[in-house]
Amino acid sequence: MDFSFAAFSKSFFHALAGSGTIKEAASRYGMRRPTSFARRFIAGERVEEAIEAARAIEADGMLVTLDFLGESVASIDEAAAATRDYLGVVDAIAAAGIGRNISLKLTQLGLDVDRATTVDNLRRILDRAAAQDFFVRIDMESSAYTERTLEIFETLWQQGYRNAGVVIQSYLRRSEKDVRRMNALGARVRLVKGAYKEPKDAAYQSMDEVNAQYLELMRLLLDEGTYPAIATHDPPMIEATRAHAASRGYPTGRFEFQMLYGIRRDLQARLSSDGYPFRVYVPFGRDWFPYFMRRLGERPANVLFVAKSLLR
Amino acid sequence: MDFSFAAFSKSFFHALAGSGTIKEAASRYGMRRPTSFARRFIAGERVEEAIEAARAIEADGMLVTLDFLGESVASIDEAAAATRDYLGVVDAIAAAGIGRNISLKLTQLGLDVDRATTVDNLRRILDRAAAQDFFVRIDMESSAYTERTLEIFETLWQQGYRNAGVVIQSYLRRSEKDVRRMNALGARVRLVKGAYKEPKDAAYQSMDEVNAQYLELMRLLLDEGTYPAIATHDPPMIEATRAHAASRGYPTGRFEFQMLYGIRRDLQARLSSDGYPFRVYVPFGRDWFPYFMRRLGERPANVLFVAKSLLR
Repeated sequence: MDFSFAAFSKSFFHALAGSGTIKEAASRYGMRRPTSFARRFIAGERVEEAIEAARAIEADGMLVTLDFLGESVASIDEAAAATRDYLGVVDAIAAAGIGRNISLKLTQLGLDVDRATTVDNLRRILDRAAAQDFFVRIDMESSAYTERTLEIFETLWQQGYRNAGVVIQSYLRRSEKDVRRMNALGARVRLVKGAYKEPKDAAYQSMDEVNAQYLELMRLLLDEGTYPAIATHDPPMIEATRAHAASRGYPTGRFEFQMLYGIRRDLQARLSSDGYPFRVYVPFGRDWFPYFMRRLGERPANVLFVAKSLLR
Repeated sequence: MDFSFAAFSKSFFHALAGSGTIKEAASRYGMRRPTSFARRFIAGERVEEAIEAARAIEADGMLVTLDFLGESVASIDEAAAATRDYLGVVDAIAAAGIGRNISLKLTQLGLDVDRATTVDNLRRILDRAAAQDFFVRIDMESSAYTERTLEIFETLWQQGYRNAGVVIQSYLRRSEKDVRRMNALGARVRLVKGAYKEPKDAAYQSMDEVNAQYLELMRLLLDEGTYPAIATHDPPMIEATRAHAASRGYPTGRFEFQMLYGIRRDLQARLSSDGYPFRVYVPFGRDWFPYFMRRLGERPANVLFVAKSLLR
């Protein structure tokens, strides 16, 4: 694999993801609604569309978690609005009778603005979620938020909230410590490789290192963790997880696999018929642009594809 | 309260509950389907009826757990049949889109016949349940099963199953130790007073002692437990729980209240509008007779009612 091209591809899409100009242009040129290509990765703008997608996934025997996309709100009012929106999403999901599981980001609830407000907003969502038997996954963002996100999670855990879990990224150098910290609590962890552009002192840069650490953390989570989620589309990672579980005689209910909506559907169908709980992460909402860009950044081949469509 | 009459009432109904003759007679005289009085406590014979009842409960903002009634199967074949039935119930609930939470008894899965078979049956149910995001409550039965039930639970916990919890009865003298044991694991406990007829060396006999221990265990669970369920219809117990949570500043998502289908519906409506997660235990199935008798045994006033209707 060409690492320099992969790195370029990642930078390219992350620049796009963070670019206000591009976002604005995209919205001006009618890209507000997911384009047909984006539609492959985004279930729609409205919760009803996500629920419809979730029903189809569940009909195939898979689980779902719904992510109402959004991040980096810039004011307390926006954070309050996002929180109200999320409460509505919780109610809509419960009423629809699909799996009660959501994912959210703390910058969506105000982490860039005020920490105490963020905790209050999260607590409101966890309360409503608990009253309706939801599990809430607190997504992880860039390394600038890792420590604060885990601390906020621990604060709520100490207050007795058990309907939430976190995400650990294998590309971060700190992650082994964080996995042990979450295992000690008994908290549910989703393990991913990580999709943000990170500096060398925070994250491993080579795929080999990221993969080696992914395997190490996977084993730590399977052996000592609480119902972890192994979230990856990478066949060698999946194979290694199955092999480790088999070698230890772990039952199928000990952990779950997770993949993103629209990615490697072939693999999804194969794994889900295998007996392991299998969950699809279903993103939806109007703020799909940064999420979409991060997904494109994960596959260098996409640069060409997008460059072509931009030039057309 | 007249304790001797209460004790007589309990014995009376427990004799009926355990009586093969009465059960047979009941079935011979067309009492196989729940009578209109029993209907108050049993959601129906079929899972479809229980799902309908659950929908109504959820529409009122409450949670459910469905119990497919059954206990004390006498052969490995019957245990296998009950297990298959339960797998069907799991699928039906998931398809219906109501809350994914069931309760079951280990003697239903073969605990009177063979322990290893029981563990296998339970594991099959927990696997299917995990693949569809269910929580499974392992009900507690008489003190003859307490240790074995907790041991089986611990075995599966060690294997990584986290989608299950247990029940602790405050009338048992051993229960403080058991609560600490479950709290140390991080396991979810439902706290009840207990509804079986127990010998003096195993259980407190006076209501005062049972209540005092209930309050002590409630505090132990709220302070050190994992999302416990405070299951009682007794207003002083409920008030003490709310007072304790308020005095410690515990948030509403830290624990839940539970009550049985059809009992104290006035209280259920009031409590559920209070913000605490509130779950209704919805029993259904053809083997409703022993459950029904235990419920009658909980209120001495029922003796007269039933005696009258038997004499009519």
